[in-house]
Amino acid sequence: MINTQADRITVTAFRWVPPFARGFVRDLRVRWALEEAGLPYRSRLIGREDQASAEYRAWQPFGQVPAFEQDGVRMFESGAIVLHIADQSEVLMPADAAGRAQVRSWLIAALNSLEPAVQQLAEIDSFHPGEAWVAQRRPQVEAFIRRRLEALAAALGARDYVVGGFSAADILVYDVMRNLGESGLLAAHANLVAYGERCAARPAFQKALRDQLADFVPDPATA
Amino acid sequence: MINTQADRITVTAFRWVPPFARGFVRDLRVRWALEEAGLPYRSRLIGREDQASAEYRAWQPFGQVPAFEQDGVRMFESGAIVLHIADQSEVLMPADAAGRAQVRSWLIAALNSLEPAVQQLAEIDSFHPGEAWVAQRRPQVEAFIRRRLEALAAALGARDYVVGGFSAADILVYDVMRNLGESGLLAAHANLVAYGERCAARPAFQKALRDQLADFVPDPATA
Repeated sequence: MINTQADRITVTAFRWVPPFARGFVRDLRVRWALEEAGLPYRSRLIGREDQASAEYRAWQPFGQVPAFEQDGVRMFESGAIVLHIADQSEVLMPADAAGRAQVRSWLIAALNSLEPAVQQLAEIDSFHPGEAWVAQRRPQVEAFIRRRLEALAAALGARDYVVGGFSAADILVYDVMRNLGESGLLAAHANLVAYGERCAARPAFQKALRDQLADFVPDPATA
Repeated sequence: MINTQADRITVTAFRWVPPFARGFVRDLRVRWALEEAGLPYRSRLIGREDQASAEYRAWQPFGQVPAFEQDGVRMFESGAIVLHIADQSEVLMPADAAGRAQVRSWLIAALNSLEPAVQQLAEIDSFHPGEAWVAQRRPQVEAFIRRRLEALAAALGARDYVVGGFSAADILVYDVMRNLGESGLLAAHANLVAYGERCAARPAFQKALRDQLADFVPDPATA
């Protein structure tokens, strides 16, 4: 066996997910960061039996993806892994202290101030359509997201990316934002729409998306 | 005016919050990290008018607390600030690569895999009691939290802290967990209860909690 550069990094991903989730599983963030950083990797595909196994849980305590290994060091949580990759790449993390502070702030803001509400909305629409509680709750979640998007749009202003130049923060902010695709909530902010198109057009994002989609087997019976 | 060490670091906090929120505002995490690291700081208390101001929004885009400044570098998001402080303290961040990777993974897990559901439950109980949708939704959120706590308890096992020795990860994990205080959900896991007591007993946590509580003015009229 010949060791290559790609043998140094492993990213776990699901072997199968329902069609609506394809392209939206969180290993995408890690694949995207690795493409931007120019770091080759291999995906390791997992299924339900792995998610429950003690061996996988020792690596990813919640049985989720992605888990990550680089040169024998193991991590989990897409945000933590992207931060770790960012520390190895000037494309993802500016060299100056002020820039680094802003990238870290926005990366965590995406995970903790934007994603929880966006995730609630996605969960409502994907897993609870038609349930009685949704009619009352959904507008509350939507109103909260509208306020957060107003703040995000105001902060972005006329900049191309959240911290000026492209950075790891955009991987998280955009990947959270694109889950609002069918909600219509982004349309109120032309700069967020343009920002989304700018992120989506990046070759590294396109490559990561293609590679996630190519890894899925067509039906659960073969997973 | 004499510049002291404490002039180097500023943390924003609310001048007033309702009694149920006292001791649970997120500047606590930053105060706790600073106490563990032995870094003196000053709090800057803000009110509603600051939250809406363009000047404060340029520092904290969502108008929330905490915002943070150290030697002229500005940040926001409690998780990002705690990471930043951790990089300055061996109490908060191990020196070896494997340890650092685990601390970062767990710190982000607290923010993105534990807090969103815990926050949903707290929001239901604090802001939506008696609303019709809650009767149907609350058990779903509770069931999700139970599964996450099972995973957390399994990962913690017999260790004192999530990554063995105390670290920045515990600041986030414990501060998220303590919001479950009155839910009764922790009682199923003796090791999580003991872990919580261990974290709460740390002098740095106690000091941070006292200092947050001491900063509040007694009633909103004076805020």
